[in-house]
Amino acid sequence: MNEKSGLKNFASRLIVILLGIPAILLLIWTGGIPFATFIGLISLLALIEFYSLMIQKGFQPWIPGGLAAGLAWIVVSYLSPDLLFPLIMLILLMFLGIMLFKTVANATANTAVTMLGFFYIPLMLSILIILRESPRQFGGEYREGSQLVMIIFAVIWICDSLAFIFGKWLGRRKIAPHISPGKTWVGCIAGLAGAILMALVIYYLNWKPDYLRLCDLLAIAVIVGIFGQSGDFIESVIKRDVGVKDSGTLLLGHGGVLDRFDSFLIAPAFVYLYILFLKM
Amino acid sequence: MNEKSGLKNFASRLIVILLGIPAILLLIWTGGIPFATFIGLISLLALIEFYSLMIQKGFQPWIPGGLAAGLAWIVVSYLSPDLLFPLIMLILLMFLGIMLFKTVANATANTAVTMLGFFYIPLMLSILIILRESPRQFGGEYREGSQLVMIIFAVIWICDSLAFIFGKWLGRRKIAPHISPGKTWVGCIAGLAGAILMALVIYYLNWKPDYLRLCDLLAIAVIVGIFGQSGDFIESVIKRDVGVKDSGTLLLGHGGVLDRFDSFLIAPAFVYLYILFLKM
Repeated sequence: MNEKSGLKNFASRLIVILLGIPAILLLIWTGGIPFATFIGLISLLALIEFYSLMIQKGFQPWIPGGLAAGLAWIVVSYLSPDLLFPLIMLILLMFLGIMLFKTVANATANTAVTMLGFFYIPLMLSILIILRESPRQFGGEYREGSQLVMIIFAVIWICDSLAFIFGKWLGRRKIAPHISPGKTWVGCIAGLAGAILMALVIYYLNWKPDYLRLCDLLAIAVIVGIFGQSGDFIESVIKRDVGVKDSGTLLLGHGGVLDRFDSFLIAPAFVYLYILFLKM
Repeated sequence: MNEKSGLKNFASRLIVILLGIPAILLLIWTGGIPFATFIGLISLLALIEFYSLMIQKGFQPWIPGGLAAGLAWIVVSYLSPDLLFPLIMLILLMFLGIMLFKTVANATANTAVTMLGFFYIPLMLSILIILRESPRQFGGEYREGSQLVMIIFAVIWICDSLAFIFGKWLGRRKIAPHISPGKTWVGCIAGLAGAILMALVIYYLNWKPDYLRLCDLLAIAVIVGIFGQSGDFIESVIKRDVGVKDSGTLLLGHGGVLDRFDSFLIAPAFVYLYILFLKM
């Protein structure tokens, strides 16, 4: 890449950041249908990218079924999370049943990757809706759902940015060059340090749910720091397996939607389990 | 197959039936740990057969992880079904996370078939434990769980047997010869008729949960009749995809465990959803 396109790339990244961050914070604050719609949109776009990757790998995912399942899941996690368990049954039965109506060759693997896409993307992202909208199941107030989700976003953003900057600047020892050539131990540790620092800032601003003590905030920051970066790595494994660099090109200079939200795919589920464990 | 080995085959089938049916009915009646253990054992054996099929197809399923997930799922569906939703999260995170520690080539498909096995077999069979042990969530008494599960088993057995006998005797038009050469429309309809007849017998013997009316019993019989046979077909698709005839050889003359319990893989989930719907 030459100097000029590098600059252009940087400028377009800056635009996405300057518009994106305040817009997303506002959506989290608002909650309700706007936030659920945002997560639903991200889920479906990322799922389409995932299925395109699988097609490039030679599979035939059942895209309409996967998208319908993803949409239904997002709607139900907003409207009535109590029905999510029966919904899993229904969705599994649909995925298994469709095998009967497809070509037999590779039916098993095609069904398996269709299901994987659903579980990996809409189901995992829907946890953000559950954390945002249903804080009462953790003994919190509605407002506290917005604080918790903002904490997750802020920690992931700081962690990703510091990992990127320190990795470029000081990083030498690669973590796993065969998966992701850009990731270094220095970047990883800088990201984790940034996550912990962000938890301290949040604590002193007191912008947090009442039921979280300082040690919980620190635990959540470490969880999000570690599993945000792991989420990034998992997506790299998938791309490397398929043999591509970016999941898509929708966000100029930022790669695809899946690239941009890969850190959000598994960290929220760990936060959900941590808080559930806290309340037991 | 010559006459002699045909007879030997028939004899060994007869032994499995004569010992198997009363033993299973007794296990359902007893409930508790013996029934859960029985379902757990079937689940793990069938899951091992499924993973062997996937290895024959060229995949590398992560067998210890799949079996551990299956075992955990069966234990929790017996001990505390309320925790099943968080457990799904934990299991999904485990399956996704393991991608980081495996060879990158085909990591996505290997993870996908490992997950498919878990969802297709232990998760689906665990519904029998939930229906047996937790009838109170449907407003029934503990005893009624045993009646409901016995109904499912009795209907599937009658349906499978009549489909087999009438299919051999009168069947000409194949349903889907490219998937399963043995299945005919006559057999399918005879199986369904047998299911309905069994529902009527159960109704007149009054051996049923109090909350099921005649129309519910008939609906359940039709659901079990249709989806029991569909479960059989789904397993045939998988075997045909891999290119084998039997899933295993554990049960002499009966093929593998997966072959014998394929009708039980998706019908119970439909019954679960029907009863949940009934109670809403």
